[in-house]
Amino acid sequence: MAGDVPPLAPGATIGILGGGQLGRMLALAAARLGIRSHIYCPETDRPAAQVAASTVAAYEDEAALTQFARAVDVVTYEFENIPGPVAAFLDRLVPVRPSPKALAVAQDRFLEKSFLRDAGIATAPFAEVSTSDGLSRALAEVGVPAVLKTRRFGYDGKGQAVVSAPEDAERVWAEFGNAPAIVEAYVPFTCELSVIVARGLDGRSACYDPVRNDHEQHILARSTVPAGVSAAVEARAKAIAERIVAMLDYVGVMGVEMFFGADGDDGLFVNELAPRVHNSGHWTTDACVVSQFEQHVRAICGWPLGSPRRHADAVMGNLLGDAVDRWRELSTEPDTALHIYGKDGSAPGRKMGHATRLFPRGADAESVERRMETVEP
Amino acid sequence: MAGDVPPLAPGATIGILGGGQLGRMLALAAARLGIRSHIYCPETDRPAAQVAASTVAAYEDEAALTQFARAVDVVTYEFENIPGPVAAFLDRLVPVRPSPKALAVAQDRFLEKSFLRDAGIATAPFAEVSTSDGLSRALAEVGVPAVLKTRRFGYDGKGQAVVSAPEDAERVWAEFGNAPAIVEAYVPFTCELSVIVARGLDGRSACYDPVRNDHEQHILARSTVPAGVSAAVEARAKAIAERIVAMLDYVGVMGVEMFFGADGDDGLFVNELAPRVHNSGHWTTDACVVSQFEQHVRAICGWPLGSPRRHADAVMGNLLGDAVDRWRELSTEPDTALHIYGKDGSAPGRKMGHATRLFPRGADAESVERRMETVEP
Repeated sequence: MAGDVPPLAPGATIGILGGGQLGRMLALAAARLGIRSHIYCPETDRPAAQVAASTVAAYEDEAALTQFARAVDVVTYEFENIPGPVAAFLDRLVPVRPSPKALAVAQDRFLEKSFLRDAGIATAPFAEVSTSDGLSRALAEVGVPAVLKTRRFGYDGKGQAVVSAPEDAERVWAEFGNAPAIVEAYVPFTCELSVIVARGLDGRSACYDPVRNDHEQHILARSTVPAGVSAAVEARAKAIAERIVAMLDYVGVMGVEMFFGADGDDGLFVNELAPRVHNSGHWTTDACVVSQFEQHVRAICGWPLGSPRRHADAVMGNLLGDAVDRWRELSTEPDTALHIYGKDGSAPGRKMGHATRLFPRGADAESVERRMETVEP
Repeated sequence: MAGDVPPLAPGATIGILGGGQLGRMLALAAARLGIRSHIYCPETDRPAAQVAASTVAAYEDEAALTQFARAVDVVTYEFENIPGPVAAFLDRLVPVRPSPKALAVAQDRFLEKSFLRDAGIATAPFAEVSTSDGLSRALAEVGVPAVLKTRRFGYDGKGQAVVSAPEDAERVWAEFGNAPAIVEAYVPFTCELSVIVARGLDGRSACYDPVRNDHEQHILARSTVPAGVSAAVEARAKAIAERIVAMLDYVGVMGVEMFFGADGDDGLFVNELAPRVHNSGHWTTDACVVSQFEQHVRAICGWPLGSPRRHADAVMGNLLGDAVDRWRELSTEPDTALHIYGKDGSAPGRKMGHATRLFPRGADAESVERRMETVEP
């Protein structure tokens, strides 16, 4: 039984697939607990490798993967687009958490939505698409406007196309590149919420308070907590997230993105599962005793989960591209925590860092709006 | 003018002399800001080198020091017992902060106490000692009981001997090993306080709230904030600390240890200056937006200092020797932040980690006592 596995003690090493900022913040959190990190990624001098041991090798390099597996006590990942066979290969040598099965569900939009439907969790109407004719049939089923999305490897709005009318099907499909896809009906919504949920090896789970996310050009710009929705909606959002991780027998932190339409039992639709720490949970580093990063390390090491309680309200703003140059002014703000990822060059939309503004707890909706306006990275 | 020096931007590298837990926590704090660290220490696999680049070489190795200086933008240190000539050597190649001059004062108890006396800051009566006869003369001057301390390289009660009666002078001196020393009168005190103060390149300074320290066998066991003294005493302690860093033209974080006798203008005596981040400031990592570690990095990089405001009351307990095995139970406590240093073996009294328990702000003296009892690492 999973609950009987002894926790990894300080001095153990976690292996992290991926060398970006999420891996970096995982490694920094692990170091606090005396747990070492070993980064595996194909590129040199990535943000995570600056603060931990690292292997630079291709994901398909089985000799390097084997050596990596032998050097670590558990393997996790900081992004979901690692090749499925890599996770399965490693899982035969060392525990991989979250499991390759959960990864397989989360990295394929059709499997993900099908899992949610089977679990009785509301999503936008969706259908699988693999041909131009199939797209026409799917549009007839889910209605227009709809969004065509690749089943795999999409992020930040990449791999998506809007279909406004049934007669556009053939043209959109041709432009889209013929990758296996899913079409989703457009669901009117008031805002996007996300829940950072964690589940331990012992089967217990814990949710941070839901946040409200605002995007600019399909990239997360700001996350605000509290989200400004009713306590009932918050509780429902958390219950959905906890149900998802329980049904997947999940171990680790997951980001669950939801559309919020309106109060009531049918006002929340799950949009996407991220089987990893999530950008919309970065505020937890500064507003909670145990951040999402430490929480993930605790979970995959078989430790008890930490408390998700927050001591402050918070607005996290991403520093995209040249906005990272705002570090000078942000460093003068007394209640702002600044995080810069150590990337070697900025590009438009590239996530270079973030800033979290903290506020005393007890916001009303109006002051949340005001706070959001104060963060304009 | 110092204030005109531009701050080091993210991507810069700080060099840290010393590879222990203080260097480790400095490097972790620097990483959050996108600032790299390069550790210099004589031993392999030290805690700090696990989370940053490192050079393993003797402090006397001038070729290695030169290469180190070329790889970094500023040099700092995590302990005050580095050889003085090393700091001076590096300072000719790259800025060393705090300055070698401040280091020289803080690493010699006689220079330190003389500086404080000249600055009009109260200390225990003291006198320099370099011979057995000199000890007798000094005891006649400062009285007994008194404590004989080496001028340099003492820590955690090492290099100290109590002299209870004038006639013991010859025996104590013979046992002591004839190192240059200082004798200090025993000052009756209620408790030890310390203030973590920071001063930036621009000359501005900031103090965290004073803490009350409890020792066991001369090693810090617990630090508690608030300290349980009056607001007037807190303000005086902070004013003393800010005066010290101003007079030394100091840049960085300093730990100022004081004895508190009684309320009133003459109830505080400065015992020791630590020209670095300090064990009694570890609680700031979990109770403040900007920790003492980030504060030090900000100061030496020419950034504005962060706010020293705390959002919680806190008790920090050191995990000494085998007490580190308590990580299992401590990891189950909801408002406790656990820190383990990654050392390869425990020994009695060795600092292996610490735990900080957080409490809502607003303690009275009685509840502070209760809290201290709850932390028994």
